Amino acid sequence: MLGTAGRYNWRAKLAGRSVNLAHFECEGVRFMNGAESLVRTLVGGGVEVCFANPGTSEMHFVAALDRVEGMRCVLGLFEGVVTGAADGYARMSGKPACTLLHLGPGLANAAANLHNAKKANSPMVNIVGEHATYHLGFDAPLTADIEGIARPVSHWVRTSPNATKVAADGARAVEAAQITPGQIATLILPADTAWNEAREPAPVAAPSKRTQVPQEAIKQAAKILRSGEPTLLLVAGEGLMADGLAWAGRIAAHTGVSVKSNWSNARLQRGAGRFSVQRVPFAVDLALEQLKDFRHIILAGANKPVAFFAYPDKPSVMMPDTCELHRLAELDEDIVHALEWLADEVGAKDTAPVLQPLQRPPLPSGTLTKDAIAAVLGACLPEDAIVADESVTTGRGFYPLTAGAPRHDWLQNMGGAIGLGLPLATGAALACPQRKTFALSGDGSAMYTLQALWTQAREGLDVTNIIFANRSYDILLGELSRVGAGNAGRKALDMLDLTRPNLDWVAMAKGMGVTGIRVEDAESFTRALNAAIAGEGPSLIEVTA
Amino acid sequence: MLGTAGRYNWRAKLAGRSVNLAHFECEGVRFMNGAESLVRTLVGGGVEVCFANPGTSEMHFVAALDRVEGMRCVLGLFEGVVTGAADGYARMSGKPACTLLHLGPGLANAAANLHNAKKANSPMVNIVGEHATYHLGFDAPLTADIEGIARPVSHWVRTSPNATKVAADGARAVEAAQITPGQIATLILPADTAWNEAREPAPVAAPSKRTQVPQEAIKQAAKILRSGEPTLLLVAGEGLMADGLAWAGRIAAHTGVSVKSNWSNARLQRGAGRFSVQRVPFAVDLALEQLKDFRHIILAGANKPVAFFAYPDKPSVMMPDTCELHRLAELDEDIVHALEWLADEVGAKDTAPVLQPLQRPPLPSGTLTKDAIAAVLGACLPEDAIVADESVTTGRGFYPLTAGAPRHDWLQNMGGAIGLGLPLATGAALACPQRKTFALSGDGSAMYTLQALWTQAREGLDVTNIIFANRSYDILLGELSRVGAGNAGRKALDMLDLTRPNLDWVAMAKGMGVTGIRVEDAESFTRALNAAIAGEGPSLIEVTA
Repeated sequence: MLGTAGRYNWRAKLAGRSVNLAHFECEGVRFMNGAESLVRTLVGGGVEVCFANPGTSEMHFVAALDRVEGMRCVLGLFEGVVTGAADGYARMSGKPACTLLHLGPGLANAAANLHNAKKANSPMVNIVGEHATYHLGFDAPLTADIEGIARPVSHWVRTSPNATKVAADGARAVEAAQITPGQIATLILPADTAWNEAREPAPVAAPSKRTQVPQEAIKQAAKILRSGEPTLLLVAGEGLMADGLAWAGRIAAHTGVSVKSNWSNARLQRGAGRFSVQRVPFAVDLALEQLKDFRHIILAGANKPVAFFAYPDKPSVMMPDTCELHRLAELDEDIVHALEWLADEVGAKDTAPVLQPLQRPPLPSGTLTKDAIAAVLGACLPEDAIVADESVTTGRGFYPLTAGAPRHDWLQNMGGAIGLGLPLATGAALACPQRKTFALSGDGSAMYTLQALWTQAREGLDVTNIIFANRSYDILLGELSRVGAGNAGRKALDMLDLTRPNLDWVAMAKGMGVTGIRVEDAESFTRALNAAIAGEGPSLIEVTA
Repeated sequence: MLGTAGRYNWRAKLAGRSVNLAHFECEGVRFMNGAESLVRTLVGGGVEVCFANPGTSEMHFVAALDRVEGMRCVLGLFEGVVTGAADGYARMSGKPACTLLHLGPGLANAAANLHNAKKANSPMVNIVGEHATYHLGFDAPLTADIEGIARPVSHWVRTSPNATKVAADGARAVEAAQITPGQIATLILPADTAWNEAREPAPVAAPSKRTQVPQEAIKQAAKILRSGEPTLLLVAGEGLMADGLAWAGRIAAHTGVSVKSNWSNARLQRGAGRFSVQRVPFAVDLALEQLKDFRHIILAGANKPVAFFAYPDKPSVMMPDTCELHRLAELDEDIVHALEWLADEVGAKDTAPVLQPLQRPPLPSGTLTKDAIAAVLGACLPEDAIVADESVTTGRGFYPLTAGAPRHDWLQNMGGAIGLGLPLATGAALACPQRKTFALSGDGSAMYTLQALWTQAREGLDVTNIIFANRSYDILLGELSRVGAGNAGRKALDMLDLTRPNLDWVAMAKGMGVTGIRVEDAESFTRALNAAIAGEGPSLIEVTA
């Protein structure tokens, strides 16, 4: 082996030979560059999918993907698609995907959906190309403070200093991503650390198990439950998967405690045969009304209910001042075990939970009101569906009428940055090719990352994209008055209005290779949805109410 | 007047009254909130256009726009459109627009085109909404480190602490934006500083003039020019406007010095009747070849020629080691005056520059090669056209064949973050409604911010969007080998390939209310381009070569 290669010093030794610089042989000895050592490390660490939008500085990584078995590569035509899809993949597979992003601006384009993924605690490894280390001082156009861009949307950030360190840095990134409950790890890869000679791939440590909650937390929660005082068990994270919910259901059946989730959840398993939970409402007044009689809230992975925004005349925390908070489990602790333990402690282990019966609403007809839309969904959702929900105002009331559909997973936006729905569904469908995936999106949200449709078409993903075309930032019409901004005039209302011209979603979908249909009444929506469910591959339904 | 309002203390005083919180009256005294004090400050400071994608936290700013005369509001359906358009507006008007962005994620979505605008030194004032100050501690979904997101893409960042400071902070932002040669100023506006009671609008200081270069710089440049040694005068910034070029042309005619610009320029005035400059080539080898005989480079606002990317076997600086650099003027200095002074110093003040004659190429026929595309453009570009050029590989050779078209302005991407072309044209057209604007964009680039088409349609902007549909990240096919990444296989090539499915730009444009046409030969391109020039409003031409 040659020694660790400096900037060009191996070149002199190879002078005059024709070499493949990416992974070359010299006098029978095979060399590996930094990029390949990284790809091999990632694959060895269980990373099987790379969502990518690469550029020049990532070409060695791209080339290495060809030489390493076991990494599926998925191209997105905008970086928000890339990170939103990696989020959906992580939520459904429980594993980190990697992303491949082009310098500071590529990362910046990815950042809004990284913000969402960070708030959802989805594990993810971002590989961000950078100029060669010696090129940085010349302020070429794409030079930017990549670490500065990465930090607000990452839990872990590192710039690899040279090719021999890349593999170990990659291993640390995968480990960081898998620290419970899941983290965003961003590794910045200067071009010369990708193309210079590297060492072997590095081993990745297996993720450590979730820590058990302390016994005192169980005892305290049990004491509250036994007190008979009005109590809410607020569940989040792993607690909203079927097993956790079953324990919560047993506790509820035995003690009479109310069980809810917060409004937004990274993943909630629901439907027939499962213990069904209501959500704390989005609207502050409704939340306060629903929670007004509780004397205690036991937090099982959840944060206390907080308003999405501040309003001049409403509180930030949506619970009565007199309500006491008790922490059963943190989000990164073993919430499911804590619920099981609590069930045991209160004597509920053998109590049967009240399970949601299969109960589909009757099919509506005529006008597509919000409830009619919800009823069609509730009537048609197939078993094991995945719902990526960014339906904003239209979907505020989807929960009750879909609760009795066959079992399904419901994924929401945890960071509030719109433009997640279509990419999230894209990644979820890629993780679960045997299941039907539905993206529910407002038209305003869907416009942010509509490029996801192209990736769905290319990969043949079974996603039904349902776009609620109310042709406005409808939520803001309400918010304008809720924040007390006064009577809006034409100029203000224009900022919330998506007409002039109307968006034609069927045309835009066609432009990206996805078949679309526009529906304007309940019957045609039902027909279109059933056709999508019977079919395969991506489709789009524009719901014009 | 009531005293400075605390969080809610004015509420008690108004208890029971029906008030418009945005700008209310109490016992005959009129109050102004922070948002309105800011809008009035911006308008007073000469900011006349607001490119916006607002959310809840910006509703008071939006409402204030209705109450203040003099600010045009333009909605973009994605924040990259908003900042790219503000960049185009600034380049053509010489004045900052403001943008209105929704918290950290809205700013993040805007960041790639802010990076481009920062590298172009376009003046811009970003107003970024933030949670109410007292709401930040609760970690609501949209809570993020907004200053952290802003810093890498801004020259100036401030968070307004309370409503009484907002107007002065806004004034400082406008002043910061107008510091030569132009800066990105980002003002973060917590919701309560927008809705609480404010003071009067604040005065904005007039921009200071550009500083004169020191006499020694002129003497030294004159000495080099008189030496007769092979010298390049490399011009940038204001020096590429007609007046600066005329002086450079006189110096060239008198001394024989070569005059060039770097490859990318924020704005270059060219065409018939102007002194024409060549650009230093993008490709490192070509640049080195063109510059190999120069002994001196005199920099008039320009940076030395630097490679866009590093390549393993090429230098970062694209000039001979033996070449000496001389600084005539910095980018923020008075470059035009420096060129005039230098012309005077070398006795060229009365020399006639060699001006570009009107010289249109003959119209090509048949296959749309890159040269044929350039010839059609050169043959058809109307007088006073604005060209927003993000044509990447297709446009590498557009310059020679368009040089003799009637006078026009050519705008390029200074930061290398793709997705600027369509938004840049949008803002330029808004600044110059009497001129024809052309966006030249690769298909990969255009997909990043295609939402710009909708804004063009809504505002009736006269933009002809020409999309070069080579259906690949064509530039990367070359880069893959140039960086020595070896023989690419299927997986790698798939990451550079935009087929499966092909993008249908005519359909996507239709979806956003813009009429499009696909052309596949020179005759149909010429017809489509002439029709767009004869017409009004936005259109799209998909050039499939």
